[in-house]
Amino acid sequence: MNMEIATVNGLPYEDFVNIFGNVVEKCPIITAAVWSRRPFVNMSSLEAAISEFIDALPESGKEGILRCHPDLAGRDLQSGTLTPESREEQAGAGMDGLDSTELLRMARLNEEYKVRFGFPFVICARMNDKATILQQLSERLRNERAMERARGIEEVKKICRLRLQGLVLIDAQNKL
Amino acid sequence: MNMEIATVNGLPYEDFVNIFGNVVEKCPIITAAVWSRRPFVNMSSLEAAISEFIDALPESGKEGILRCHPDLAGRDLQSGTLTPESREEQAGAGMDGLDSTELLRMARLNEEYKVRFGFPFVICARMNDKATILQQLSERLRNERAMERARGIEEVKKICRLRLQGLVLIDAQNKL
Repeated sequence: MNMEIATVNGLPYEDFVNIFGNVVEKCPIITAAVWSRRPFVNMSSLEAAISEFIDALPESGKEGILRCHPDLAGRDLQSGTLTPESREEQAGAGMDGLDSTELLRMARLNEEYKVRFGFPFVICARMNDKATILQQLSERLRNERAMERARGIEEVKKICRLRLQGLVLIDAQNKL
Repeated sequence: MNMEIATVNGLPYEDFVNIFGNVVEKCPIITAAVWSRRPFVNMSSLEAAISEFIDALPESGKEGILRCHPDLAGRDLQSGTLTPESREEQAGAGMDGLDSTELLRMARLNEEYKVRFGFPFVICARMNDKATILQQLSERLRNERAMERARGIEEVKKICRLRLQGLVLIDAQNKL
């Protein structure tokens, strides 16, 4: 069951990091940092605090966030080493049901993307399916590096929002 | 066997993050970020890049790093959920061999520290033993918050240096 924001605000940092530590994939430092900003008025203000922390990072830090993300349909999916959140999201987008031709195509495009940009292709899997993911991957490969870094971070924030929505009650009235 | 810096510089980001991702406890984003700064002249320049990244973080980010650290002789040690690096370091400092009186004292002081500062007591276990850890914990409890945050980050950097020394060959000559 999702938590009330008042409950979230009352959590000691250890529980807060245990529960929200992976809303940005493998970056518990971000969750742990925004604990300093509590109390949060609602889920959106928690999300905004995370977003602001990310935006204030140097470009290398943003690339660092992207590099903490697994490939779509990549070796972490094959070997069962995805985080629970990623596994569910990738499965939801059909990434665990690719045929061998699709797998090969995905692997080749992922590799091309990583060689070109030095970070992985990040997309909010829950807002996409197999077809749109492959299409986006092909298209975004043609972008400039800085543009693609910004685009990846946008996707990180979408993933973060959906993960937060799975944990915190969305409150129509902004009561503290 | 420790790696030559030339080998380190040749690693794709995925291998780099797999190998060095925990030199700052549970903060792979930092390792992933400094990959952008390669090639490194030697281990010290890799260490300096990490240090500079940490120093450039806002104070909340530094607190975030501290909050990613486990308690000494705390519940992660008891339940076996420490990272391999932390487990080895805590065991080396005798944290896995405390008697019940020492355990209780440590738990009480850790708790007092966390309530006072909002982050855990961090100390480089490999440069200390049971006696000095307990003494430091008691003493540092009396510091001001900002001072203690800075002190914790100093300890994070010592831990990082020793973890790096376990992975990268220290090169007397600074060949690239």
